[in-house]
Amino acid sequence: MIQLLRLALAQINVTVGDIPGNAARLIHYLERARAEKANLVLMPELAITGYPPEDLVLRQDFVDANLRALEKVAQATHGLIAIIGFVEREGADIFNAAAVCVDGRLLTTYRKICLPNYSVFDEKRYFRAGGQPLILKLGELRLGLSICEDIWVDGVVESEAQKGAADFIVNISASPYDWQKGDERELLLTSRARNNRVYLAYVNTVGGQDELLFDGRSFIFDPHGQPLLRGEKFQEQFLLHDLEIDTSLTKAAARSPREAGGAMNKAGLTTTESLTLREVSIEMKMPAVPTRSTAPNLAPHLADEEEVFRALTVGTRDYVRKNGFKKVVIGLSGGIDSALTAVIAAEALGNENVVGVLMPSRFNISASTEDALALAQNLGIRAFTIPINEPMTSMENSLAPTFSGREPDITEENLQARIRGMILMALSNKFGWLVLTTSNKSESAVGYATLYGDMAGGFGVLKDVPKTFVYRLANWINRVRFKDNPVIPQRTIDRPPSAELRPNQTDQDSLPPYELLDRIIEAYVEEDRSVTEMVEAGLPREIVRQVVNMIDRAEYKRRQAAPGIKITTRNFGKDRRMPITNRFQP
Amino acid sequence: MIQLLRLALAQINVTVGDIPGNAARLIHYLERARAEKANLVLMPELAITGYPPEDLVLRQDFVDANLRALEKVAQATHGLIAIIGFVEREGADIFNAAAVCVDGRLLTTYRKICLPNYSVFDEKRYFRAGGQPLILKLGELRLGLSICEDIWVDGVVESEAQKGAADFIVNISASPYDWQKGDERELLLTSRARNNRVYLAYVNTVGGQDELLFDGRSFIFDPHGQPLLRGEKFQEQFLLHDLEIDTSLTKAAARSPREAGGAMNKAGLTTTESLTLREVSIEMKMPAVPTRSTAPNLAPHLADEEEVFRALTVGTRDYVRKNGFKKVVIGLSGGIDSALTAVIAAEALGNENVVGVLMPSRFNISASTEDALALAQNLGIRAFTIPINEPMTSMENSLAPTFSGREPDITEENLQARIRGMILMALSNKFGWLVLTTSNKSESAVGYATLYGDMAGGFGVLKDVPKTFVYRLANWINRVRFKDNPVIPQRTIDRPPSAELRPNQTDQDSLPPYELLDRIIEAYVEEDRSVTEMVEAGLPREIVRQVVNMIDRAEYKRRQAAPGIKITTRNFGKDRRMPITNRFQP
Repeated sequence: MIQLLRLALAQINVTVGDIPGNAARLIHYLERARAEKANLVLMPELAITGYPPEDLVLRQDFVDANLRALEKVAQATHGLIAIIGFVEREGADIFNAAAVCVDGRLLTTYRKICLPNYSVFDEKRYFRAGGQPLILKLGELRLGLSICEDIWVDGVVESEAQKGAADFIVNISASPYDWQKGDERELLLTSRARNNRVYLAYVNTVGGQDELLFDGRSFIFDPHGQPLLRGEKFQEQFLLHDLEIDTSLTKAAARSPREAGGAMNKAGLTTTESLTLREVSIEMKMPAVPTRSTAPNLAPHLADEEEVFRALTVGTRDYVRKNGFKKVVIGLSGGIDSALTAVIAAEALGNENVVGVLMPSRFNISASTEDALALAQNLGIRAFTIPINEPMTSMENSLAPTFSGREPDITEENLQARIRGMILMALSNKFGWLVLTTSNKSESAVGYATLYGDMAGGFGVLKDVPKTFVYRLANWINRVRFKDNPVIPQRTIDRPPSAELRPNQTDQDSLPPYELLDRIIEAYVEEDRSVTEMVEAGLPREIVRQVVNMIDRAEYKRRQAAPGIKITTRNFGKDRRMPITNRFQP
Repeated sequence: MIQLLRLALAQINVTVGDIPGNAARLIHYLERARAEKANLVLMPELAITGYPPEDLVLRQDFVDANLRALEKVAQATHGLIAIIGFVEREGADIFNAAAVCVDGRLLTTYRKICLPNYSVFDEKRYFRAGGQPLILKLGELRLGLSICEDIWVDGVVESEAQKGAADFIVNISASPYDWQKGDERELLLTSRARNNRVYLAYVNTVGGQDELLFDGRSFIFDPHGQPLLRGEKFQEQFLLHDLEIDTSLTKAAARSPREAGGAMNKAGLTTTESLTLREVSIEMKMPAVPTRSTAPNLAPHLADEEEVFRALTVGTRDYVRKNGFKKVVIGLSGGIDSALTAVIAAEALGNENVVGVLMPSRFNISASTEDALALAQNLGIRAFTIPINEPMTSMENSLAPTFSGREPDITEENLQARIRGMILMALSNKFGWLVLTTSNKSESAVGYATLYGDMAGGFGVLKDVPKTFVYRLANWINRVRFKDNPVIPQRTIDRPPSAELRPNQTDQDSLPPYELLDRIIEAYVEEDRSVTEMVEAGLPREIVRQVVNMIDRAEYKRRQAAPGIKITTRNFGKDRRMPITNRFQP
């Protein structure tokens, strides 16, 4: 049988907690779907509440508001079948659920079976796991539902598919971005489609939420695993696609019924019983779909630098806007981190919404000031200068009696950084600008930043970007993104990096070369490698020891750092929950 | 049958990550137990690694080190039976486990069945759940093992006991303190003993770990639910007790075998199968126990203020010491929060290890300075004065061109607080003193504190203490603890609280009275009450709305706050995981 289906994937950007706003956005897209004569509309996981709602879901009033909103949204589905993520309640339990809304009413729900509780996820803190796959019968077509993690764990969609139950697997997700996950996800989805001989549609939310960024990139695959639709990354999109579903491609595949029990255990399910399928029929006359092209519609893959640049841009824009700010302020040092932060901020918010502040001290060389001003001019952002020599002298005078007889040391370096932090915060308080911090992941890892100094601010654009990748981005910006008019002064990129807190200082006085440092950070922080393993992999033992100690000892600083966008496989934040009090010697 | 058993409960203070140090401590107490002719030694949950080890347990080298340490500790059990908490590994899974060590070797292990994943707990992030209760047969005596949460959830120890399998339930715990849990825990344990007609021994770890404090207070109960032993709170103790176990009191109770399945589900267990008991016999000639008194040995209950005072003292001491600091520095304002913080610090660390700094501005009245100096003198702590007028003027001058035409506002108030924070951090950098912050929970809730100002520092002693309780503590300190020589100037307690950042400012210019504020905070933060519920409970709607908005909007500040000791049922920290980007209107 061939069935024509017009599918709409709402790859949308919702805001955590903004239940009325999110509902209005869902209704807007449902109306559009109806106008476009779509049959089936997929909306992301927890689209009503935003993802992750965290401890908000422990509040009864929050879950109530979400249920009331779902009711309203369901009423807007007349003429449509819509799958919509929301929080379902039963007694004292709540579920991460998908509402199946048909023609203006809630027909049934599906409850997420696999609850991720690792990495940045805490779903077992909140939700009870579902235990029952759902098949929607739509004429001769059989749709198997799943929510995010369900499709990552062997045995859930496979159990539906391998029992021959589904022709078409649907997955609604809120799957956070990291720079490795995109390829991984596409490979996973294509293999799920191909191995189970099913059509597969996947919709992912998009946009930033605190440290997390959702990259969209929704998909449709055919039963050969060929992509029919690939959405854009980091953009809200309403994706329409006409599918000619050939059930002979799916039902023809001989499948032996198989219990999913074994694989389930691995998923940490709350049951070892085999999952029993539930089937629900949808009785709705589907509107006739006018014939349109069913040709594949595939957004291109992006180069690494472009992908991360877009990620940081959207993450910054969403944090700033969703928290009610319009303008941001950045301390411009003439160095590469603040330059890159300013470029991203201008891209995210418009150059009229970015203010740069130069805060030179007696240790800043003139090249720094020149480069900072050149950058501001290239970007077309407002910049002004507030020298810190006078406050620095007065602080030193105030402390002189107490410090008498002591040599200058890191204390005085930190004072400079803290005066700068104080100036930026004063501008924030006076004018309502959000302070963007400029530290990168390499500095944050080893504590090469001043608490309440350059760490002062509301959002860390580069917080999870290793310094070596800061260089790659800066080069890409000059050579590709702004190739006709490079915005970052070349000297900013070429000079040895320096905090300029004492004469002739460079980062490499205190740190190993960044290439080496970043390899150690990746091995230790992201891969949990032991010192022995790192040494066996060819890294120098003394430096490994030194860096590992620095990383462990800087935990107290990171705990007071501003949030920033996760782009690596493990960021400093909810993704890595280390004790501060920790005497482990790795 | 009557069996005499000499029981040792090692209510000990270990340090997270200090595996060699913890092992040495366990071995020390095992040797003491042998010298004291104890038969059975109980050591806390995860005693080898410290609790909670958080993401350290994701590291293979960490789990390896813990296994090697357990081997050494097991060898030190000759002549003893010891139950010791450690991380067990099987393939790719790890378990929160109890090692049963007998006469110098590891006999078997028990794996925690109920993994808490709420409140401050993340155990499902790390551990696979065990599924098998264990009975140790020791001659005619049958011991049922359990780990912490196992005894809180209906159905686990009950399944052992109600099947008539156990005479004696053993529980090893790392159960964090809050000011309600003590009574709750004692009631729970007594009812488990009585309802199941078993002897019950409970050992809890003691000491501070970042925001958590473990209060010890180990117990032994008889089958009537009568306490035979009650350990001290907040003190490391090696508790010895001779038990005359009368199995006729336990086995005589007719019990119907019952499956635990139903209740298990509630515990979020990974199986709904009934739990099948495993029995292991211990073949060891027990040393004869010389007859000693078996009379109850019950540490007294403490008054609320004394309990919290001790909690804060131990929490502060452990954070400071375990992180390698000797001295602390505190900004003394003449107000009640800094006074109380200084009293606790002096109690925790000795007055010679506490430095007070007065940082007066033109807005501080002379009473503040007098009271701060009097407090320092009463406590015998060093104090010195660093006025902030000069740095304040120089900061204002530096900002004047940028701020031209703008009225002074909260910006200038924050500048004062930030200059003070900067001075304290400079002292910390120069002399290696840890800065203690002085904000209380009420201020933290509503954001009535300056980020990088009075919030700057390494540890917040009063972070989870509501302002109304700050007053109760201050009064108790003067009237009870130091009744012969009250240390806190009475005027500090009596004056209206003020941040003194502008002339004649008081807290109540910006905030409702603290009695009312604290009621709203408790209802909203700790009890998740809705605005409607609070209003129905008699709280004024306008003020409730205002406070709730303040609490929600201050999340970004709290995210950058120093850690501090949890004493309430829900602290700001791992216990309350709220998004910063959050548009929910409760």
